[in-house]
Amino acid sequence: MEYSFSKSTSALSSSAVREILKLTQGNQVLSLAGGLPAEDSFPIEEMREAFNRALDHGAKSLQYGLTDGYIPLREWVSSRMKQKHMNVGVENMLITTGSQQAVDLLCRVYLDEGDVVLVENPTYLAAVQLFQFRGIRAIPVDGDAEGMDMEDLARKIAQYRPKMAYVIPTFANPTGKVWSLEKRLGLLKQCRENNILILEDDPYGEIQFDGEAPYRSIFSLDEHPDGSAVVYTSTFSKIVAPGLRTGWAIGDSQVIQMMVKAKQAIDLQSSTIDQFALYELLSRFDLESHIQKIRDSYKERMEWMHELLCRQTSGMKWNKPRGGMFLWVELPEHVHSEKLLAQAVKEGVAFVPGIPFYADQPQTNTMRLNYTLLDREHTELAINRLGKAFAEYSQLVAH
Amino acid sequence: MEYSFSKSTSALSSSAVREILKLTQGNQVLSLAGGLPAEDSFPIEEMREAFNRALDHGAKSLQYGLTDGYIPLREWVSSRMKQKHMNVGVENMLITTGSQQAVDLLCRVYLDEGDVVLVENPTYLAAVQLFQFRGIRAIPVDGDAEGMDMEDLARKIAQYRPKMAYVIPTFANPTGKVWSLEKRLGLLKQCRENNILILEDDPYGEIQFDGEAPYRSIFSLDEHPDGSAVVYTSTFSKIVAPGLRTGWAIGDSQVIQMMVKAKQAIDLQSSTIDQFALYELLSRFDLESHIQKIRDSYKERMEWMHELLCRQTSGMKWNKPRGGMFLWVELPEHVHSEKLLAQAVKEGVAFVPGIPFYADQPQTNTMRLNYTLLDREHTELAINRLGKAFAEYSQLVAH
Repeated sequence: MEYSFSKSTSALSSSAVREILKLTQGNQVLSLAGGLPAEDSFPIEEMREAFNRALDHGAKSLQYGLTDGYIPLREWVSSRMKQKHMNVGVENMLITTGSQQAVDLLCRVYLDEGDVVLVENPTYLAAVQLFQFRGIRAIPVDGDAEGMDMEDLARKIAQYRPKMAYVIPTFANPTGKVWSLEKRLGLLKQCRENNILILEDDPYGEIQFDGEAPYRSIFSLDEHPDGSAVVYTSTFSKIVAPGLRTGWAIGDSQVIQMMVKAKQAIDLQSSTIDQFALYELLSRFDLESHIQKIRDSYKERMEWMHELLCRQTSGMKWNKPRGGMFLWVELPEHVHSEKLLAQAVKEGVAFVPGIPFYADQPQTNTMRLNYTLLDREHTELAINRLGKAFAEYSQLVAH
Repeated sequence: MEYSFSKSTSALSSSAVREILKLTQGNQVLSLAGGLPAEDSFPIEEMREAFNRALDHGAKSLQYGLTDGYIPLREWVSSRMKQKHMNVGVENMLITTGSQQAVDLLCRVYLDEGDVVLVENPTYLAAVQLFQFRGIRAIPVDGDAEGMDMEDLARKIAQYRPKMAYVIPTFANPTGKVWSLEKRLGLLKQCRENNILILEDDPYGEIQFDGEAPYRSIFSLDEHPDGSAVVYTSTFSKIVAPGLRTGWAIGDSQVIQMMVKAKQAIDLQSSTIDQFALYELLSRFDLESHIQKIRDSYKERMEWMHELLCRQTSGMKWNKPRGGMFLWVELPEHVHSEKLLAQAVKEGVAFVPGIPFYADQPQTNTMRLNYTLLDREHTELAINRLGKAFAEYSQLVAH
């Protein structure tokens, strides 16, 4: 049998990074590469109780359910969204297999092959891959620490006639950036004027370090829910646990219902029992305290990594993030971070080079470090190994 | 905001059937429409214990996991597949969100817009919808009680140059049909000769009523795993519970790994905790006895529905299925089953009209009845209501 894959699979071709990171599985390599939450934050005993209570509902907890999701869970999310100035009902909402699936579903119902999506530069690598896999052109818009550059945005809109803009305005992946209110409103205005749908991806918004009022979502700043120029997606992965694979999307009911129909064809629905259990957890859990603990813990880990990086004499530059899970590092210009990774893995530490986060011309001297997974001791060990790899790499390059 | 959906969404437009079936939710309508397993077959207490043991693994049970699935679960499936003459390892296997997702993943990595898939006539309606949603042409091949007509298959291959054939050879949905060994080998031969990949969908194979040796999967009849002309998919939905949304696909490792990459982009992975729990269940559960109980119970329900239908004087025709979950009924020629459904819902019973199961020209006097969900008493009530609706419909048509 001679297999002949679809054209779109060319976007899925193995990356050098993936191959290197595979080497790190199951051995002594310390990983700063993934986007994994700290495991000591998972409410294991509460989840045990929640699954027990879910199964007290009997067979319904194990039967097929609604494609758009378990209604009590959607009501809970709706009520939480309302606290964040997003006035949505269950009909504006769809439960997804992580927020990643929401991106896929919206692409499939809204974009055709060859359509253009504007993205940040850099942006979430899996979104870029997903766009490419669907034959969609991802065009990067320049930006600064406050968000997209509004002039470049206007230029790119005029030049490419995009149908969508994909942004992570709060504690972005990979940069940790937070958009200013002005930039949020600016994006909204230009997108509204040009009939461009905004996909606002917000997995990290709750992980805010500064104790200030939460940043306003772009969705909340627009007319909504019906007629909204924004589809907003988030997830329980970072505030409860990722293994439940439960996220949600909210938006105009017509858009959401189209996503529901697509999901019905694709996988019928996400896990019934996980949705029941999550609802049982949330209905009795002190989520606010739990999130506050995660914030405190991640802030401490971020400060610690920051301190450890400051001790290195490597010429690295970074901005201290105000939230989220990542430190985005710019290395000296001569450093190619994929080559540095190969050296780092030999020393027993891994990270993600910046290259795959760029939709177009990558800046090759960048890397993303995750500070949430490892504890204090292992973070120190990891950064020391990284420093050693960096020194060796510099020496190799010098020769 | 003016929304403009992708071209492919035209395949998702609301169907009359879906609208009628919506009316049946939450009220007194008895449903023979869904493909829902009997709820008294769900091992609720065993699942409770299994989730408890899964959470004994600690944080790993709630963390991100491998895209291709939890290794112990894949090893369990591999060992079960080996009992069924399918000699596969974990690298030939991918855990999916129900077998429905396996169909989507294979379509995405193997087929381009405009490609042709050969299907049975009729075939599983959600597969037809999925093909259309991806812009793939589903071409029906004629068949009889034993499987596809080999001459029509040859004709359609010559005419349409298909890249894939999608079949449910054992207790098909909707017809309940079982393919003969000869037809299985015939399909395999023609597909091998023409480099056509076969997608063998087998959700119902375990639900066999006659106590004979299990029917051989087409996958098991081919050279395998590597180089196989077949990708085989099945699910725990019908032998444990559908709410866990856990299925699997097996095939050539190159094909499977491409599906893994696609899944990584689409939703990263299916629920970690559900896979842990399912493995914990299966490692201590007497699955054979459990499946035997399901077989006995479904056989009894099928026989009962058969008997009830025989009492009706409606001119309906059907074959008694040898397994699976559905009775496929041919009504007298003058009956349009969508119109009959409207009448039936008024009487308090629902079914799925045959029309959406046809990729092309539908036979409008057909319907699919599910016999697994309702108990004895409700099945009787449902068939009586159906008989009444039929009588009223006939009278309306006569006038």
